[in-house]
Amino acid sequence: MADSSSLRKPTRSGVVRAAEKIARLLPPTPLLPVVIRGHRVWCKAENLQAIGAFKIRGAWHRLTDLSNDERRQGVVAVSSGNHAQGVAWAARELGIAATIVMPSDAPGVKLDGTRTLGANVVLYDRPGGESRDDVAARLVAESGATLVHAYGDPWVIEGQGSAGIELAAQLAEEPTRIVACCGGGGLAAGLALACPDSAIVPVEPEGWDDVRRSLAAGEILTVGPNPPPTACDALQTLATYPVNFEVLYGRAAAGVAVSEEEVRQAQRFAFSRLRLVLEPGGAAALAAALSGKADLGGKTVIMLTGGNVDAAAFAKVIAE
Amino acid sequence: MADSSSLRKPTRSGVVRAAEKIARLLPPTPLLPVVIRGHRVWCKAENLQAIGAFKIRGAWHRLTDLSNDERRQGVVAVSSGNHAQGVAWAARELGIAATIVMPSDAPGVKLDGTRTLGANVVLYDRPGGESRDDVAARLVAESGATLVHAYGDPWVIEGQGSAGIELAAQLAEEPTRIVACCGGGGLAAGLALACPDSAIVPVEPEGWDDVRRSLAAGEILTVGPNPPPTACDALQTLATYPVNFEVLYGRAAAGVAVSEEEVRQAQRFAFSRLRLVLEPGGAAALAAALSGKADLGGKTVIMLTGGNVDAAAFAKVIAE
Repeated sequence: MADSSSLRKPTRSGVVRAAEKIARLLPPTPLLPVVIRGHRVWCKAENLQAIGAFKIRGAWHRLTDLSNDERRQGVVAVSSGNHAQGVAWAARELGIAATIVMPSDAPGVKLDGTRTLGANVVLYDRPGGESRDDVAARLVAESGATLVHAYGDPWVIEGQGSAGIELAAQLAEEPTRIVACCGGGGLAAGLALACPDSAIVPVEPEGWDDVRRSLAAGEILTVGPNPPPTACDALQTLATYPVNFEVLYGRAAAGVAVSEEEVRQAQRFAFSRLRLVLEPGGAAALAAALSGKADLGGKTVIMLTGGNVDAAAFAKVIAE
Repeated sequence: MADSSSLRKPTRSGVVRAAEKIARLLPPTPLLPVVIRGHRVWCKAENLQAIGAFKIRGAWHRLTDLSNDERRQGVVAVSSGNHAQGVAWAARELGIAATIVMPSDAPGVKLDGTRTLGANVVLYDRPGGESRDDVAARLVAESGATLVHAYGDPWVIEGQGSAGIELAAQLAEEPTRIVACCGGGGLAAGLALACPDSAIVPVEPEGWDDVRRSLAAGEILTVGPNPPPTACDALQTLATYPVNFEVLYGRAAAGVAVSEEEVRQAQRFAFSRLRLVLEPGGAAALAAALSGKADLGGKTVIMLTGGNVDAAAFAKVIAE
């Protein structure tokens, strides 16, 4: 699959430039103080972005850097739903045609949201093992569109990192550590670039913790065969990309894996204590904080990354 | 019942002073842009306050202005839960003893929250018609404590108004109008003082719209006998006070009444589009905006005032 990560490396100056572009467009998301296990920590509420997730950042940075020729040929993205909505939102703002490849079992709220933003949605059969990258590569070959990879792309990494510039400004310093959910590692790598003095703690669902294992092994490992079911649809990524791994491994961040029950507890905490709606993947970092799996000493920021969740699923979790 | 509204009138300079005190303690709540019925409007997310409601503002302004003698004798408040938590929070911060009179049918999350903050909770029988003011007056007479009225108090009005100073700064100008839920009128009167160039639109549940009727009649009217049941526990106030009415009537604000179904629709909109948890009363202003009962032209700010709702009740609403 075509991978723009071979073109250039993401940089901190690229993150700063992305943050400047995004600050002109979107208000900063709030940094909410809360006490967890006796520590005062700060929650960065990226679920309050216009599309309900941080993914709007990377999509905006990537699409605004396209040339006029590239814009005319459109963009293709692959996503379970939040990157999809980020790309669709940015494409609509810029008048660019967007085709998004989404799994047929994505949450209805994400499928609807992407279509409502005007994108052309192409479904693939995730449970059946169809390769979404093959579907996307065919669309790119047919149309000449630019692939906007969900994490393995220097612009996307830099764009997601803009959240780190924003939160450091809100905190008036770089935090001791940033705990962030991790699918392919776009956000984690971007935050690592944005905040060179902060420890970055990527959090994955148990059985999907390829980044944690890769960081421990010093090489990219994939999720094993038959991974367990997880409610964290946004974090079902089989392997990170070199462009992400090189940034994260260079920073020696150690990963954390959280259980499905820990994720549900975090959703309930966000509901009752923060009055925020979090989807399962968006609650993973909070789950690591609440469970004690992530250290909270010093100044810790916890990324609340998304809130796009079907009502019935959310109702079931909070009523438990 | 002792009523400090006879002592002095709330003023705009008092609101500004309250805003300065609160800015030193609490981060501003976000002002979230959203499109409703074709209008770009701004939602002031006061449900993201530390206690999940704006009531922390008035309580902090009142309690920090008590003398040392008054602080030693403690405070008494009457509340269905949000003012309760505001007073309990401020009292805990300042080391003041707080006794809160709450209805026995208040949401469990509000009763638990108030007790967790260290207040002494005294229950009264709201459905049975027991007078909460009588219970509070007896407590005040016995203890010499200061009554912190939920709305009929100049400090409380000024404190709630600090949200208006904050949102005008965030918007870089006073909005055309502010749509705000209304129980006794503490918030509405405070906003009217804070933003003299803005129209103030108080929103009440149908059958509990005594402020709307009072503004239309030019005199204080009470809720009629046997008012209908409402999920808006925070807005079940039988009559406003002169101190509130004089501010609101002087501004000729016209009120709006919303139905229970309109309130539930607003809770669902906040869940799916804003990723915010709102209690019924906290969604009343949004209900007025979504239903078309409140005008939205110019620059409109919608107050999202509280998010303290029992999980089972919220699950039922969003799963509808």
